[in-house]
Order: sequence, then structure tokens, then C-alpha cells
Amino acid sequence: MAAPSVAALQDVATQLRIDSVASTSHAGSGHPTTCLSAADIMAVLFFSEMRFDAKNPQNPDNDRFVLSKGHAAPILYAAWAEAGLFPRERLMELRTFESDLEGHPTPRLPFVDVATGSLGQGICAAIGIALNARRIGSAYRTYVLLGDGEIAEGSVWEAADAASHYKLDNLCAIVDANALGQSQATEFGHDLNRIAARWSAFGWKALVVDGHDIADVQKGLDAARATSGQPTVLVARTLKGKGLSSIEGKDGWHGKALKSGEEADKALKELEAKLTRTDGKPAISGPRSNSKPAPPADYGTLPAPAYKMGDLVATREAWGTALAAVGKLDPRIVALDADVKNSTFSDRFEKVAPDRFYEMFIAEQVMVGAAMGFAARGAVPFPSTFACFLYRAADFIRMAGISMLNMKLTGSHAGVSIGEDGPSQMALEDLAMMRAIPNAVVLYPSDAVSTERLVAEMAQHKGLAYMRTSRPKTPVSYGPDERFPIGGSKVLRQSPDDKAMVVGAGITVFEALKAYDILKAEGISIRVVDAYSLQPIDTATLTEGAKVAGGKVVTVEDHYAAGGLGDAVAEALAPSGVIVKRLAVRAIPRSGEPGELVDKFGLSARHIVEAVKGK
Amino acid sequence: MAAPSVAALQDVATQLRIDSVASTSHAGSGHPTTCLSAADIMAVLFFSEMRFDAKNPQNPDNDRFVLSKGHAAPILYAAWAEAGLFPRERLMELRTFESDLEGHPTPRLPFVDVATGSLGQGICAAIGIALNARRIGSAYRTYVLLGDGEIAEGSVWEAADAASHYKLDNLCAIVDANALGQSQATEFGHDLNRIAARWSAFGWKALVVDGHDIADVQKGLDAARATSGQPTVLVARTLKGKGLSSIEGKDGWHGKALKSGEEADKALKELEAKLTRTDGKPAISGPRSNSKPAPPADYGTLPAPAYKMGDLVATREAWGTALAAVGKLDPRIVALDADVKNSTFSDRFEKVAPDRFYEMFIAEQVMVGAAMGFAARGAVPFPSTFACFLYRAADFIRMAGISMLNMKLTGSHAGVSIGEDGPSQMALEDLAMMRAIPNAVVLYPSDAVSTERLVAEMAQHKGLAYMRTSRPKTPVSYGPDERFPIGGSKVLRQSPDDKAMVVGAGITVFEALKAYDILKAEGISIRVVDAYSLQPIDTATLTEGAKVAGGKVVTVEDHYAAGGLGDAVAEALAPSGVIVKRLAVRAIPRSGEPGELVDKFGLSARHIVEAVKGK
Repeated sequence: MAAPSVAALQDVATQLRIDSVASTSHAGSGHPTTCLSAADIMAVLFFSEMRFDAKNPQNPDNDRFVLSKGHAAPILYAAWAEAGLFPRERLMELRTFESDLEGHPTPRLPFVDVATGSLGQGICAAIGIALNARRIGSAYRTYVLLGDGEIAEGSVWEAADAASHYKLDNLCAIVDANALGQSQATEFGHDLNRIAARWSAFGWKALVVDGHDIADVQKGLDAARATSGQPTVLVARTLKGKGLSSIEGKDGWHGKALKSGEEADKALKELEAKLTRTDGKPAISGPRSNSKPAPPADYGTLPAPAYKMGDLVATREAWGTALAAVGKLDPRIVALDADVKNSTFSDRFEKVAPDRFYEMFIAEQVMVGAAMGFAARGAVPFPSTFACFLYRAADFIRMAGISMLNMKLTGSHAGVSIGEDGPSQMALEDLAMMRAIPNAVVLYPSDAVSTERLVAEMAQHKGLAYMRTSRPKTPVSYGPDERFPIGGSKVLRQSPDDKAMVVGAGITVFEALKAYDILKAEGISIRVVDAYSLQPIDTATLTEGAKVAGGKVVTVEDHYAAGGLGDAVAEALAPSGVIVKRLAVRAIPRSGEPGELVDKFGLSARHIVEAVKGK
Repeated sequence: MAAPSVAALQDVATQLRIDSVASTSHAGSGHPTTCLSAADIMAVLFFSEMRFDAKNPQNPDNDRFVLSKGHAAPILYAAWAEAGLFPRERLMELRTFESDLEGHPTPRLPFVDVATGSLGQGICAAIGIALNARRIGSAYRTYVLLGDGEIAEGSVWEAADAASHYKLDNLCAIVDANALGQSQATEFGHDLNRIAARWSAFGWKALVVDGHDIADVQKGLDAARATSGQPTVLVARTLKGKGLSSIEGKDGWHGKALKSGEEADKALKELEAKLTRTDGKPAISGPRSNSKPAPPADYGTLPAPAYKMGDLVATREAWGTALAAVGKLDPRIVALDADVKNSTFSDRFEKVAPDRFYEMFIAEQVMVGAAMGFAARGAVPFPSTFACFLYRAADFIRMAGISMLNMKLTGSHAGVSIGEDGPSQMALEDLAMMRAIPNAVVLYPSDAVSTERLVAEMAQHKGLAYMRTSRPKTPVSYGPDERFPIGGSKVLRQSPDDKAMVVGAGITVFEALKAYDILKAEGISIRVVDAYSLQPIDTATLTEGAKVAGGKVVTVEDHYAAGGLGDAVAEALAPSGVIVKRLAVRAIPRSGEPGELVDKFGLSARHIVEAVKGK
């Protein structure tokens, strides 16, 4: 196909500007000026550089584009309308409840891989997207557009480091340096060499270009494509509001739509006057390759867990074993680590599938962000670290929820039961973080067998899932054929005479069993439930148990009280009018022996016994 | 005072090594090898470079030391024992429940400013500590020790950027580059020029030194002290396990204590043989300056809120007005922004106290981290941004909880009621994040008067506090003299005939009032409570109201169900046997008009009416 002329691309850029101004003015809100600065870059990317099937945005070999500066959504929508995916008129639905053309892009739209709008995340996802091309053997390239204000986010530098470590020459970032942030000038203004120097130091080829000069942008992209062994960044000098003489380069216009009527009309007129219509509409070239999908894995062939009842095995270790097993079986699975693989046991996966294991070093945000990118492109990513350090990526996990991604998080070393390392290493808020996400599956197994079974469930489940694993060894308490469906639970002790129901998960299941023995000796029967699935929670079994137990329910969890197991059970039982007594960690913990801490922070058998006997 | 000899400092380093090995072996866990790599640096810092009152670690003019690589805690404790703060024997209490010498440092110890152990945080706190020297007019210098694995964390680069932006020549970072991470070699190994190049690109003076050569470290620190207008980093070549011939520079020794008995004894013997005892113990010089504390502010002089009942004012705007007012009154108050000051209204503080306002650009982690450092040094920091973006700093907030710091967070633009910008900008998990922290105060005012009063309460409260503000304008509904104590609530509608109690906070208070009017017209009385203090929550008032209302309680919140208002009220009422019906956001939201979203996601008056009428 003939390369499009500069004039034709300029016309496209002008059209994108017109659409951005018109749609935001019609919506009465949005970010036109940040679209205007990016218009020439977007025109070149979509209509000269990128190779993709514009009718099928999900073609696995399409070049990918990530709008890391998500507030420029209107121009992304305009580009796809211009590419012919949907009629231009639909751009006027921007920001309405009925439309998927939201204020910031989400994967409700088929051409959006990950939701953006929280800055510094799109480029992390782009790392996973670029790595995924290698996984599936595709020649697609990945492009990501950032703002210059955005590069203050540390996650951008985590991504920069990872991209150069993995020599991602199929990745090209463009910084739209319009020199204006939301509330004031950006830190560097138009001193673009300072920005470029940072990327260079992080191992990127860094080029400063004129972001409003079509040919200069093309030259930069040519150089990126010709570069091997390292990613490329174009630091593009632009003006916020470019194309509108009264706004261009002026502060105070961030996030403001032009007023419908005179103000917008005048602006649109100014832009329309720039259309030359000297050349036809540029054609878009198809994908560079035609990769073949791997056949689906048969989880029926997965061997049963190989443990003996009573064996002492930490769930974190069983998780590592299980991850290696599903990883061997299913080529979609990738694992990502943040330099704790020998503690989480993800190193067992690395041994069986080194080409699908990614060491992201101590950088949890890009670990999760890259996993998001992988998930968006059909992989089944398992990022893992200590559960407390997943919290470092909380905002990424929030956005993964909005993106409805098929990602499988695992956090190890949960709770005070880790012991001597102290509070900085204890996750006590991870269940709340994960339960907050609608539709996220939250699993917390107590023994090795349930862990292995649940890892396979997670891998097969379509959607966001989280598993919490523990540091201490716990006895294997289920037979190898036991099944653990998501949303289920296990009743470990029961009788028609139950005087209370104690619901635990993870290590507290064993405290509940100890409490059972103590109470049994005193002639008091209790029901003990292993609530390995916190979300969805097994409302039916809990309701039935609460009924038998006369409405006396105690929960016990190695987690803070807010948002954890107790709250989950309480809400599940509220419609039945059952009140829950919650045992949970209620003070900042400290170092000590695991058993000592479990006792001192109120989770041990004696506390359960007291709660059962109390009013 | 005479400068200590190299031999004397080498002896100190050896003693610190001995103490690190002995204390971790005695504890049976911990990180001796990362202490050994840092020992010479620590000896020079504490006994040659830093000027401080070793008997009073909280002297405001002491040079500050932050151990960003918190797992090297044993050598920090050893250094203070060596400096004479407590007897060396106490080092053997390491990691026991009875001792404050925890696995990672926390401010339970008087010489620790912020808890570390989550990597990449200490250097962010150091930014605030260094900025605080300017606030109080002190000549103290700030030193921070990082690991080389740690610099993969994006937050390190947020800190690097902020330090150079603020030209912090009173700050010196040392990277202990021992080339070994937890699970494998670090990314750069001993290619230290690559590390130094990154810091240089971020505006630091960067020097590579031999971290085991006392004189070379001293020379680097001399250069740092002589540098003006920029911070300095020493990238120090070291060996993990330095000093123990069988371990030095070997992988596989991360986080392993030497076994008590033969293994430890042999190591201690090897180290003890290195003690020369040729010179005496180095003396420590006192602080560089003697700053005077500002007199305490008299909050009694704060003017009453200046609003008329019924005025429409967004709580975010009232917050900005209030912050400016308390900021004018109280010189301890500093405000930090992440480039949204014109949306959160923190720019009103900037106008009245520009020298105590810090623009941290779009870098929420260092914004919160620097605030932690300020708080540790006696300032009262108010970091603020959109509530959803505070989540970016969730792990910092977790550590601020562990540090029990006097920090005042504010998150604006909460919930679906922000409208068209869509889910990426909506905070729906911030209440859960903050409620998870034991003792954190969580406030969520509904109108301008309560906002102003609560900002003053926050400022005076000693401890971590969070305020959630809203984007939409809401009517002023309290008189100027109304008071809002932390832990209180307001009963807005009540009668002896109440058939239900509806508890709202923020914007949902007004939906509850609308529901009241609708139900009133039908002859049904309900009690309406404004639960402006979610933590602590007003259990007494809620319990009394629930009793009058016959145990029928409905909560309504612009937040996900997990960990928010509903869970807080449910737990408060559980001892009274009251069940709570929770209205909350239960699906991933989308763009739309604020009122439309509040209705579609189940929070509007009609949903409250239904819930009241339902079973």
C-alpha cells in the first residue's frame, strides 16, 4: 500500500481534533486540550505506522496501542471512528450512561486492552502486552502514549526498567510533552532533553521529536522500528490545545470542555478551515503476522494432589507446586515475581517453564501492570509476592477490576502468623482490598490439598481471582480426591447438637479445630467451617449451619476486622437475621513467635472458646 | 573533637558485624548478611559523619538516619547500642514479643522516624525529613541507606525526582550495592556506573565509592556535604556477608541467620579476630544547630464557618477553605499535592502559606511518603489528592499506620457521584483502606460546616486521620456553631415513632433526607443519621436509634460494600443483636450524570424507601 501523504495525515489530525472538541463540548465535560496536543501523533500512529485489522480490534496480531494518558479518551475514540470501526456520529454519545465511550477508556470497548485514567499504568500494561508477543510468536508491535506530567509516577520508571531489562524492541513509547499539567506547568516544561536523559539512563533509545511535525514523528517511529535490543521512546514537543489559537499552550484549560454554542462553534470553525482535503483518506495496513492459538489445556489430566493426611505443608509451598503443575499443562499461564520467588515458591514454576516466568525485581506495580497486559492479550498471568507487598499495587488491582481482566493474584505470608519479621511483612488488609472488587474471586485455603485444587480452579475461572497463602506449615486435612469449587466451603465438624458455628479460613481453621476439641471435652458441640472461598461466599452452607447452631456464629481470621472474613460472613447471614461475633486483629501487631502472636492478637483456640461461651 | 582514626572506625564496623551476627543467631531468624555489607558505611555514618545527641534521639536538631533497607534492622540497633543509647546486652532481645527491637524497625523505638521493611519507602520519608529542616530552620542533615535491589521500586524514583526538584543538598542517600537480592543477583550486579547514571539523570550528584573502604566512604560524604543545590547519592560497592569468608559475596544467604552453636561461634570468632583495639572508641559530635520550637497554635481563635444554611458548597471546596484557615493559624501544618490542587482546593492553602505547600507532581507515593517524614519530625502534614489516587500509596498508608504517625490524609472526588469521568476516577475502596488501620480516624462530612469543623478536629487530633470529600455541591445543613467531635454523629430526623433508622454519610445523607420526606408523606417516620465519623463510630447514638426504630437499620454509602459504612455500622450494632441492611455500590460503575449514577448504583432515595419498606 502506498504511504499516506503528509497532507492526508494532517487532515486526519485535524479531523481528530474536530471530533475531540465536538464530542467533549457536546458532553459538557472532558479533556479536549490534551487531545489536541496528541492529534498529530495519533494520526501518524493509526494511519501510517500501526498495522492492524481495523474491523477486528481483537485480532491477536494487531499492533497494540495503549493510551496511558487515559484522559485523552476522546481522541482515541475519534481515531477508531476514523478507522471505520463505528460511525463518527456515535462520538456524540461520549460520557453518557448508555454508551461505552466513557470519560476514560475501559475494555468494555473492544479496542481497549486495559482501563486507563490512573496515570502511569498503561505503560506497565504495555510491558506485558509486548512480552506477550513473544509468548504467542507474533510480530505485533506495542505503542503507548504517555503525558509528560505522567512520567512523575514511579510506576513509569518501573516499566522503563523492565522494558530495557527484557530488551523490548517491539515496544515504543511516546511522551506527549505539552508542558502543562492539571494545576500548573509540568516539572520540566519543554526542556525535553532532561526527560530524554532519564529514559536513556534507563536503557531506552530516546529521541526528541516535534510532535506536531508529521514527518518528524514518522522519522522517530522509523528509528524505533529499526532499533533492536532496546525499547524506544519519542519525547514529543507539543502544545496543549494545539490548533486553537486562543487556547494553544495556555495554562488553565486542563479538563475543560469548550462551551457548547459560540465558544465551541468558533473553535470548530477554526479547525475546519485547516482541512485541505488535497489527498484521500489513508488506508490502514493489516497485521504483520498470523500467529496460531495454542490448543486449550485439558485440566482433566491434572494429577491429584500428592499428600498424605497429616503431612505438614505450608499453603505457600503447595501453591508453588500447583502453579508448576498448571503451568506445565497450560501454555497460557505466565508467572511474574518481585524477587521473592524462593519464599512464595513461584520458583517451582520457573523451573518447569522458564520462558514464561518473568522476574520483575522489587517492583510490584509493574509486576501487576505487566500481568494486566498479559491478561488483556489472552495469557493467564499469575503475579505473586508477599500479600502485604501486593498492596503496593493496590491502585493497579483496582484498575484491573475495572478492566475485568483474567488475572490471578497470589499473596503469601498473610497475617500475624508470619511471626518474627514483624508488622511491615504482615498482610492484614489484603482480603479487604480484594473483596472490594465486585466479581473478584477471593480464596484462602487452609491446607495443601485445597490449595492445589483451588489453584487449578483459579486457572480455569475466567476473571480476576486472588489466593491468600500462609507461611506456617499446616497439616494436610483433606483427601486427594476432595473437590473445592469456587464459592464453596467445607464443614469439618458438625452435629445436630451444635451450640455454635465457628467459621475460619487459612491458619485459623486449625485454631477452630483445637477449640472444637476443648469444647467437646466439656460436652459442648460446635460446627467448624473452612470458608476457603471468601468471595463468592457459601451463603447456603453458612445459613444452614447458623440455623442448626441456633444463630450463634463466630468468625476468626488472621486479618484486620475491616473488610475481611467476618464482614463477609456477617453480610451473608444478615438476611437470615444472624449476628456474627468477629475475632480479628484489632491492633498494630509486632514481632514475636507465630503461635504467640496468633494468641496475643486474639485468634487462638482459647479466644474462640471464650467467644463461643460468651453471650 | 578529633576525627576518629580509620582503625577505630574499622573496629566499630567489626563490632557492628559481631552484634548483627550474634543477635540474629540468638533470635534464630533475620538478615545478618545485609547487615554485614552495610557495616563499614554504618560505622562511618554514626561515628564520624553524623552529628547528633546520642542520649536524645528525638533532639530536633539531630542529623537523621533512615534505614530504607529495613531488613538490616539488627545493625541499626547495634549502632545505637554502640552509641550508648542502651546496653549492648539488649540486642539479644531481637525479634521477641517483649522487645521493641523488632524484625524491622518501627517508631516504637525513639531513634526510628518511620517504620521500614517495605522497600522504597524510607527514601520517600527522607524527602519530608529533609524538607522539614527548612521548615524549622535547622541545619540537621538527613542520611538514608538503601539496598541495590530496592532501587527497582518506582517510589525510589519519585523520591529522586522530588529531592532534585527541591534541591535538597541537606540529603544524602547511600546505596549499599551488595549485588545480591533475595532470590537471585540484582539487576545490575556490580555494574555501579549504570546505577549512578540513573541518579545523575534524575538530578543528583552521584558518586561510586568502595563501601568497605572507610576513607573512601568518608570522602564521598565530604563531597556530599560540600555540594549545594542538589542531593548526593553514594553508590557503594559492597559484598553481602562481608567479613565472613565462607559467606561473603555468595548467593543463597539472604534472610538466613547463622545457626546458633558451631556455625555462629565460628563466624563470631572470625570477626572478633579482626578487632585491632588500636584506638579508642570514636566520640559523637552534637547537633549542628539549636532550633526553637514555634509556640502552639490556639485553635480557639479559629473563626466559625461562614456559610448560610442552604448554600450549595462542595465539601472538597469547604475543605480547601478550612485547610487554609488552620494552615494560617498553625505553623506545624504543611500541605502536599499531586497536581490536582485546583480540584481538591488545596491551592487555597498554597495561597496563604506558599512556603509550607509542596507540589509533588503526579507522584502519590512520595507525596504520602514525604508527609510521613514530615509527621515524624513534628509537622502536621496534609497530603491530598483524589481519593482513588491515594490508593496508589496504599502500602505507604499501611506503613504510616504501623508507624503511628500524625498524618492527615484527604481524598476528594469520592464515589460514583463524581459522574462523567467514569470508574477510574471514583474512589470506592478508600474507606475500607483507612478503616483497616487500627486507631486511624476516618471522617466523611456531608456539608461545608461539618467539613470545616472536622478539618480543625483532624489538625488537633494526635494520630493518623483521613477525610473523604465529595465533588458535588451539597446544601449547608448545619449552623455555624454546631460542633462535630471525632467519634460523634448527628441525628437529623427523629421521632418516638421511627419505624427505621437510615444511616448515611457524605452525599447519601441527602438521599436519606429525601427518603424521609417521601416516607413522611406516606405516614412513615424514619430516623436519619449523619455518620460523619466512621472510625471511631458513634456506637451509643446508633444503638439508641436502632432500639427506637425497632431494630430496622439501613445504611447507604457511595462506596463498595466491603469495609465501608455498612460494615462499620453492622459491627457496632452486632452486640445489640441488630441486623443492618446495606445499600452500597455492588458493580463496576461507569460514566454518567452524578444523579443518574447514584440512582443506577442503588444509593438514591427510592432505593432507601424500598429498603425501609422491605422485610
